[in-house]
Amino acid sequence: MNSVPLSKAYALPHPLPLDSGQVLEACQIAYETYGTLAPGKDNAVLVCHALTGDQYVASPHPITGKPGWWERMVGPGKPIDTTRHFVICANVIGSCMGSTGPMSLAPDGKPYAMRFPVITIRDMVRGLVGLLDGLGIARLHAVVGGSMGGMQALSLAANWPTRAARVLVIASTARHSAQNIAFHEVGRQAIMADPAWNGGDYYGASARPDNGLAVARMAAHITYLSEAGLTEKFGRRLQDRAEKGFGFDAEFQVESYLRYQGSGFTRRFDANSYLYITRAMDYFDLAEEHGGRLANAFAGTPARFCIVSFDTDWLYPTAESRHIVHALNAAGAKVSFVELSAPHGHDSFLLEHDQLDRVVQGFLA
Amino acid sequence: MNSVPLSKAYALPHPLPLDSGQVLEACQIAYETYGTLAPGKDNAVLVCHALTGDQYVASPHPITGKPGWWERMVGPGKPIDTTRHFVICANVIGSCMGSTGPMSLAPDGKPYAMRFPVITIRDMVRGLVGLLDGLGIARLHAVVGGSMGGMQALSLAANWPTRAARVLVIASTARHSAQNIAFHEVGRQAIMADPAWNGGDYYGASARPDNGLAVARMAAHITYLSEAGLTEKFGRRLQDRAEKGFGFDAEFQVESYLRYQGSGFTRRFDANSYLYITRAMDYFDLAEEHGGRLANAFAGTPARFCIVSFDTDWLYPTAESRHIVHALNAAGAKVSFVELSAPHGHDSFLLEHDQLDRVVQGFLA
Repeated sequence: MNSVPLSKAYALPHPLPLDSGQVLEACQIAYETYGTLAPGKDNAVLVCHALTGDQYVASPHPITGKPGWWERMVGPGKPIDTTRHFVICANVIGSCMGSTGPMSLAPDGKPYAMRFPVITIRDMVRGLVGLLDGLGIARLHAVVGGSMGGMQALSLAANWPTRAARVLVIASTARHSAQNIAFHEVGRQAIMADPAWNGGDYYGASARPDNGLAVARMAAHITYLSEAGLTEKFGRRLQDRAEKGFGFDAEFQVESYLRYQGSGFTRRFDANSYLYITRAMDYFDLAEEHGGRLANAFAGTPARFCIVSFDTDWLYPTAESRHIVHALNAAGAKVSFVELSAPHGHDSFLLEHDQLDRVVQGFLA
Repeated sequence: MNSVPLSKAYALPHPLPLDSGQVLEACQIAYETYGTLAPGKDNAVLVCHALTGDQYVASPHPITGKPGWWERMVGPGKPIDTTRHFVICANVIGSCMGSTGPMSLAPDGKPYAMRFPVITIRDMVRGLVGLLDGLGIARLHAVVGGSMGGMQALSLAANWPTRAARVLVIASTARHSAQNIAFHEVGRQAIMADPAWNGGDYYGASARPDNGLAVARMAAHITYLSEAGLTEKFGRRLQDRAEKGFGFDAEFQVESYLRYQGSGFTRRFDANSYLYITRAMDYFDLAEEHGGRLANAFAGTPARFCIVSFDTDWLYPTAESRHIVHALNAAGAKVSFVELSAPHGHDSFLLEHDQLDRVVQGFLA
């Protein structure tokens, strides 16, 4: 990946305390906004991004030039309507699109690399709350997130319960399972096995751990898609040939697709950020933070919740969403829950889905 | 891995023709036998091994010293009873435990490496049939296999229908799905991304692509276990510590387990063999070989079939076994089918399972 043109950036006025006990000096949050903040500052919607996402939720990505990652959801007249709402999307700390992360310069003027402190989902949210403070937003109209974005929404609700009136959690979980951790560990090992990773010290070097990062992305990408979706999309069809080639080129379309996903990803993402963010997700267990009982996380919450899952999502299956809903019920919170049917697995939250649009629009109204 | 002490080895008397149109000169099949061949040569049971398996089905592995991979199933008084049956288990071609594969010497005296021809499951079975010819066994009492071993059993039944009276297929499939191919492709890319792979030319070099091979094994291993089994076995428990360490060591037990699986595997397996065998599995589509209709593969078969699946196997789910059963029914074959309940996913066929024992014993009786 190349150097990153900054979007808006907010420098936190104080060092950011972290769950590890360390502090992050001189922490910067890069963010984008869409729409206009109302005079009463009561129309803000915070959209939280997923593992490899960024602040470009509804505007072109500066490296790839591709449209924002949720343009179908965020914009004028869209379910998250920027003619009514002031939408904020910030790059999480630990990431690589302008917020402080492993590729940022440490106080000694050299990149943190693996000297960057290990962070948690709550640390990411602590950074986001710092941004909200800076913007003078005491209470969000809503916090919205899919996948890791949903973890942030839950963490905000649990730890800063007055900061969001509505909490919308899509295709997410309140804890990472052993299988979730296992897939992330494969990705981390793929990166760390790449000699170009060099213990994390590759900034400014001629080679980056692109091979390892691409393999990590490929493995993760399989978990984002359903078996049925893969079969529908690719089946056993061959790529640009009529017959098996008896070689090791990408012969099947699904191989070609995965290689494309892996190599494209390395253009826009930093391998060390991948290590730190997957670690934060693996550490995520909202119950553990609250005495081992998830309902405790939501005790007395004034927020309204909406939890959405997809029936073919095997990364964070519906059972995990139900687990959240049961905890919210036990805490006496206002919660609605819907399992949507979609063929595309976990990635469904990013794809066309009229029912999801209606749920989001209705919940934010 | 180190050099391999040979078990029995049979040199095929003729070059082996391959599906690719190439031929394998001077092909050798390494095998183990257990029990005694009856005078009528009618008590032989061929056990076919899985992707990373070998001929040591019921005797210690010469490199690891571990017991045979199916000792609980094969032996005196066991479900595949060596007091009654003459059990043969041979290393497939393309593998690395003595049968001709990429680490074998080509006619020019140098290892084949990636000059080894790409093979198919049917090619593996062609090699096994050559061994049976050499042993003078016209008709097996049974052919038995789990996972890739089941593919070989199906291929033998389809292409050499008179060679086995009974065909027992466990936790297998008649075709590799897009998701199956995708996981294998991640593994291949991990190996080929390792600089020590060096285009396959690493035999005799100081470094081998152990890092890439370990990542491949880790990714594959996740698919061998069920989500529930992983949760039961590891959950989110930490390894040798009471608190999160905020680092990148293997902190969760599941991470530690996967790293152990990955590193242990590289001691006994060759990376190029992993490439060739996964490719053969991805090519496997028994219907495609028979005019696009799976029932054609079994037309007029005189064999009896038994198909077994496990309810938590998401690698080759029960639906794939049903697909085989429907084809056998359509072909008018004698077939029994059972889905067993087991918590451990695909790997269940290798683990303690009394019901599986009874099914195997009953079918071979």
